[in-house]
Amino acid sequence: MIEELNQLVGQTAPEAPLNKLNTGIRQKRIGILGGGQLGRMLLQAAVNYPIETFVMENDPTCPSAHLCHHFTRGDITNFDEVYNFGRGLDALTIEIESVNEEALFKLESEGVKIYPNPAALRIIKNKILQKQFYKENAIPTSDFIITNSLEELKQASDFLPAVHKIGMGGYDGRGVQVMKTSEDLQLGFDSPSVLEKMVAIEKEIAVIVAVSATGETTLYPPVDMVFDPRLNLLEYQVSPADLPEKTLWKIEAIALKVVKDLKSPGIFAVELFVDKPGNVWVNETAPRVHNSGHHTIEANYSSQFDMLWRIMLGYPLGSTEHILPAAIVNLLGAEGHKGEACYEGLYDILQLENVFVHIYGKKETKPGRKMGHITILSKEKQELIHQANRIKQTVKVVSQ
Amino acid sequence: MIEELNQLVGQTAPEAPLNKLNTGIRQKRIGILGGGQLGRMLLQAAVNYPIETFVMENDPTCPSAHLCHHFTRGDITNFDEVYNFGRGLDALTIEIESVNEEALFKLESEGVKIYPNPAALRIIKNKILQKQFYKENAIPTSDFIITNSLEELKQASDFLPAVHKIGMGGYDGRGVQVMKTSEDLQLGFDSPSVLEKMVAIEKEIAVIVAVSATGETTLYPPVDMVFDPRLNLLEYQVSPADLPEKTLWKIEAIALKVVKDLKSPGIFAVELFVDKPGNVWVNETAPRVHNSGHHTIEANYSSQFDMLWRIMLGYPLGSTEHILPAAIVNLLGAEGHKGEACYEGLYDILQLENVFVHIYGKKETKPGRKMGHITILSKEKQELIHQANRIKQTVKVVSQ
Repeated sequence: MIEELNQLVGQTAPEAPLNKLNTGIRQKRIGILGGGQLGRMLLQAAVNYPIETFVMENDPTCPSAHLCHHFTRGDITNFDEVYNFGRGLDALTIEIESVNEEALFKLESEGVKIYPNPAALRIIKNKILQKQFYKENAIPTSDFIITNSLEELKQASDFLPAVHKIGMGGYDGRGVQVMKTSEDLQLGFDSPSVLEKMVAIEKEIAVIVAVSATGETTLYPPVDMVFDPRLNLLEYQVSPADLPEKTLWKIEAIALKVVKDLKSPGIFAVELFVDKPGNVWVNETAPRVHNSGHHTIEANYSSQFDMLWRIMLGYPLGSTEHILPAAIVNLLGAEGHKGEACYEGLYDILQLENVFVHIYGKKETKPGRKMGHITILSKEKQELIHQANRIKQTVKVVSQ
Repeated sequence: MIEELNQLVGQTAPEAPLNKLNTGIRQKRIGILGGGQLGRMLLQAAVNYPIETFVMENDPTCPSAHLCHHFTRGDITNFDEVYNFGRGLDALTIEIESVNEEALFKLESEGVKIYPNPAALRIIKNKILQKQFYKENAIPTSDFIITNSLEELKQASDFLPAVHKIGMGGYDGRGVQVMKTSEDLQLGFDSPSVLEKMVAIEKEIAVIVAVSATGETTLYPPVDMVFDPRLNLLEYQVSPADLPEKTLWKIEAIALKVVKDLKSPGIFAVELFVDKPGNVWVNETAPRVHNSGHHTIEANYSSQFDMLWRIMLGYPLGSTEHILPAAIVNLLGAEGHKGEACYEGLYDILQLENVFVHIYGKKETKPGRKMGHITILSKEKQELIHQANRIKQTVKVVSQ
């Protein structure tokens, strides 16, 4: 790669460890739309590089506001506010899909680099377009029908069991309804939505894929998302996932195809189902850093956050290799607690030597809110699972 | 420890993984005096915990200013400014010794926790008091005499070869003068200083020690500071240092004694000389996070920065264990370059899979200025040294 580039610029530099192309790593101006925990961890990684950072978010007490050079209070869904925020920046990224994409298209046409590009974002942020994209590109995904109203949905009882997902605006479990019998149909959404045939899931896997501005790609080792079978709640995530080699190859090939067909640089999280016979189905894709990649901060040479900066700065892609295997547990606001956050049991967990605590700095907890996560590193898978369960039993985010 | 504490509060909690003492990890307000790269990396680590951060520094474009909740432009050597900054905080730390210590004594008397405490800081920041402290506490250190003026220094030709160090205000190599012959005496300092007998150094070692508010201590593995024998410039640092077991024990015992005798919580970097016969001498101590501990960000479970927050927040001390051995190379401003910084050769280095780049975000480079560092992780010591040399030859911080 370097040799090719050197040839392009007419340099052979036989004696040189110095690549002359690179005589210019200088500070760049990069913005983030949204100021939650993903922005926070991005800004934490930005500390390592020469970057002038910009954040736009409505809430000036959000987790990212104090960690950037320039905070703009603004509405990320508003055309003018996004456009004015993005003008003059070298690059712009998102930490949530619900941003004004028209402004991104305009900024892109004026030379601002957008990660992911707005065309890919448009496909992904609408669950209907996303499903159609999989189908058009022959990417394996569960069967689906589109429902534009509750009326239409009620005709679809033959299609059950299925999952009803609202086209636009769903997030973190909102806008998703499991439908087992025809009585459940009335719980569906009365707006354009997609009804997805239920897959007999054996495993849920997530893969983070990085794509450079010049189209180079690299994959992180797949992550096993372990759910509580009774509550259908994510228990913990383990990386690398325990998979037969053939299934692993299939997953990697499919994840790579999703991202290549999206034709956009950036970081993508592809979530997949594996069924008992070993078939692989794409569930959905996020065009950004993702919860399923948080362990990469400590567990991999280049974290997903580091990697996105490398992509936006035009640096070489980093290494996705594991330093050590890892598990993570999300810290969610406890049921029945709303108010100023307090972290019960955390003192105990901070005594474990192979555990890394990440609190997102949200002042207020509420039931189910993502308040932090804890990463465990260990060569031993049993140790990862043991500690993950211990953390789940010990730490509780309550109101004071 | 937990059991003892549980007994103290009258709880036995037979079934509990939950330590009730800990039902209260809440946000704390903590300040840093100084806004350079040490503050920057401290704030990067602070992102993981519930902390409201405060920084005071004269330069609003300093490496830390944009990474805290509250930046105060102010003079850290001024009594009123330091005192007003510290009032109402839960805790306060420093990232440089030259702060107003009277203000710290007053704040301490009013209940603000200071890391390190001002009594320890007073000893360390004056190289004369520091040497006397070692002598009084029977800590092995090279012989020395005190010189109050150039006139007194000129009487000391019998004491050469020696190193003349100014009592107050030296920093990063400034205020230090090597004296081999009596002609060198005129290069000395005309103010209270210490003249230290030169030791026949075989190795220079640094040890980071952590001390909790309740007096618990833990040591990081010693670091080998490798100097260029011709230029007497730090080439790179390797951790853990390659030492005979007996020397290692001696170093650890001495470093621990230094810190225990200082009677202060905080992070301390003890720099030591080892001579050919294996004698160990304390060179000097820094009462704060230190350049010789930067590799701990990636190489150890709890970094020196993470550890200082744990100490200030009253959390358990973290693990100082290595995840992998490491080396670091400092990136210093190149000779003959002054102006807006540009990082030559960095692109090449970012392609190495086991390398972590840290740029400090200083707009201006000047000769010898600390502009960043690069950490290398590897199981193989030869690989560490090979990559360290490669980085030294490849990366150059120049002006644009």
